[in-house]
Amino acid sequence: MNARTATIVKFGGSLLEDAGRRRAALTQFARVEGPRVLVHGGGQAATVLGERLGVAPRIVDGRRITDRETLDIVTMVYGGLFNRTIVAELQALHCRTCGVAGADCDILRAERRPVRNIDYGHVGDITRVNPGPLIAFLEQGIIPVIAPLTHDGGGGLLNTNADSIAGAVAAALTGSREIALVYCLDRPGVGDADGKTLRRITPEMAEEHRARGVITSGMLPKLENAFAALRGGVSRVVICGIGGLIAAANGDEGAGTEVCL
Amino acid sequence: MNARTATIVKFGGSLLEDAGRRRAALTQFARVEGPRVLVHGGGQAATVLGERLGVAPRIVDGRRITDRETLDIVTMVYGGLFNRTIVAELQALHCRTCGVAGADCDILRAERRPVRNIDYGHVGDITRVNPGPLIAFLEQGIIPVIAPLTHDGGGGLLNTNADSIAGAVAAALTGSREIALVYCLDRPGVGDADGKTLRRITPEMAEEHRARGVITSGMLPKLENAFAALRGGVSRVVICGIGGLIAAANGDEGAGTEVCL
Repeated sequence: MNARTATIVKFGGSLLEDAGRRRAALTQFARVEGPRVLVHGGGQAATVLGERLGVAPRIVDGRRITDRETLDIVTMVYGGLFNRTIVAELQALHCRTCGVAGADCDILRAERRPVRNIDYGHVGDITRVNPGPLIAFLEQGIIPVIAPLTHDGGGGLLNTNADSIAGAVAAALTGSREIALVYCLDRPGVGDADGKTLRRITPEMAEEHRARGVITSGMLPKLENAFAALRGGVSRVVICGIGGLIAAANGDEGAGTEVCL
Repeated sequence: MNARTATIVKFGGSLLEDAGRRRAALTQFARVEGPRVLVHGGGQAATVLGERLGVAPRIVDGRRITDRETLDIVTMVYGGLFNRTIVAELQALHCRTCGVAGADCDILRAERRPVRNIDYGHVGDITRVNPGPLIAFLEQGIIPVIAPLTHDGGGGLLNTNADSIAGAVAAALTGSREIALVYCLDRPGVGDADGKTLRRITPEMAEEHRARGVITSGMLPKLENAFAALRGGVSRVVICGIGGLIAAANGDEGAGTEVCL
């Protein structure tokens, strides 16, 4: 790893929800060498808080319908509790980190998803990544920790899929560095029909597995983001578990599932 | 205002809680010239969320007793909802901003307040401000927006008084710039016995007013922070309302109450 590379690591929310698993995940992340960006999801914690507040979650195709109160909840949980806690815990692991959401340094702009069959509410599709501030952080030796929130430029926050953010950020940084993107899950990679982890997956294999119902609905958009990142110039995309993270970041074989075009 | 100055503005939580007042306050802040830092409080919103979650607030001498659940609430409300919303709204007002809490770039370290008569819980007293990252933001034309949270260096977040943060940040930046500190309230300044705004206040006047019961319990620690900032090398401290903010930042007379040694 040299200064002209960077690894974008996306952690699924389930890896971060309880203190023990979060510590295990962040400890591995702290051992990754070289410039890094961490993108974290949210997941169940927002649902739990919503239920305590009497706001029932509505999730369609893995996407959370985000009314005004749900936006406040995800801003609090993802942008507040998760992001601030991760940053503090990484500092204790001697990682210099700065937690950001999309509006911070205008890093991630999005537009509210157009209403077709479903009104997703305050959900944003990324329209622009501003790589300058991210590069400035990396050049100062600071790891940006990105919460899955974007902004619309008009003062509004938007709930945005963390896989999409990781892919878009990775592609946007290819102009300045060689970029590896690692999607880190609570499983060791993409499973085949027998539950064995695939060594690699291409768009054709993904389509075949989808048609046979082997790939779950949550994995499909992740793979779409992975293929888009590769088409956007990202050098390497790996989907793996925590145990594969360091190998994936180092470009070693067998870390998990390598995504290929 | 030139590049070798900076204005630290602290907004009380009550100015930021409803959308209309927040817009008014941030619009004035956006009009302040030159490099700036915004420190925001929290206040009632955490109490409201706590009540909805069945966590009763316990406040002693204006300080919130912060058990584990209350720490999560203030992290969500101050570090998430308030901070992210303020940043997004300032971006819409053409201010380049980055929201931070104490652990971000290791800006604010604190130690848990020692238990004497009262155990304040996860409440931190500032032990060190790291001015480097704040200066780096200012030099990039970015306004740091600081939430009232610090960290202990061991992975723990701590709830910390926003007035103290503003004073400590102001003093820490005096090594590199001429610093003005403005405490912005929902009143036009420090009131005398007749409710008239004092033009200036010194430690002797503050003691006299305190003895006569004119100065309220909330104002005393604010004044202590203001005096400490002046002793720490801050050039000017003004306590004012939103209407006085621009005049205070410009060093004009009559903006509110000027704090003097």
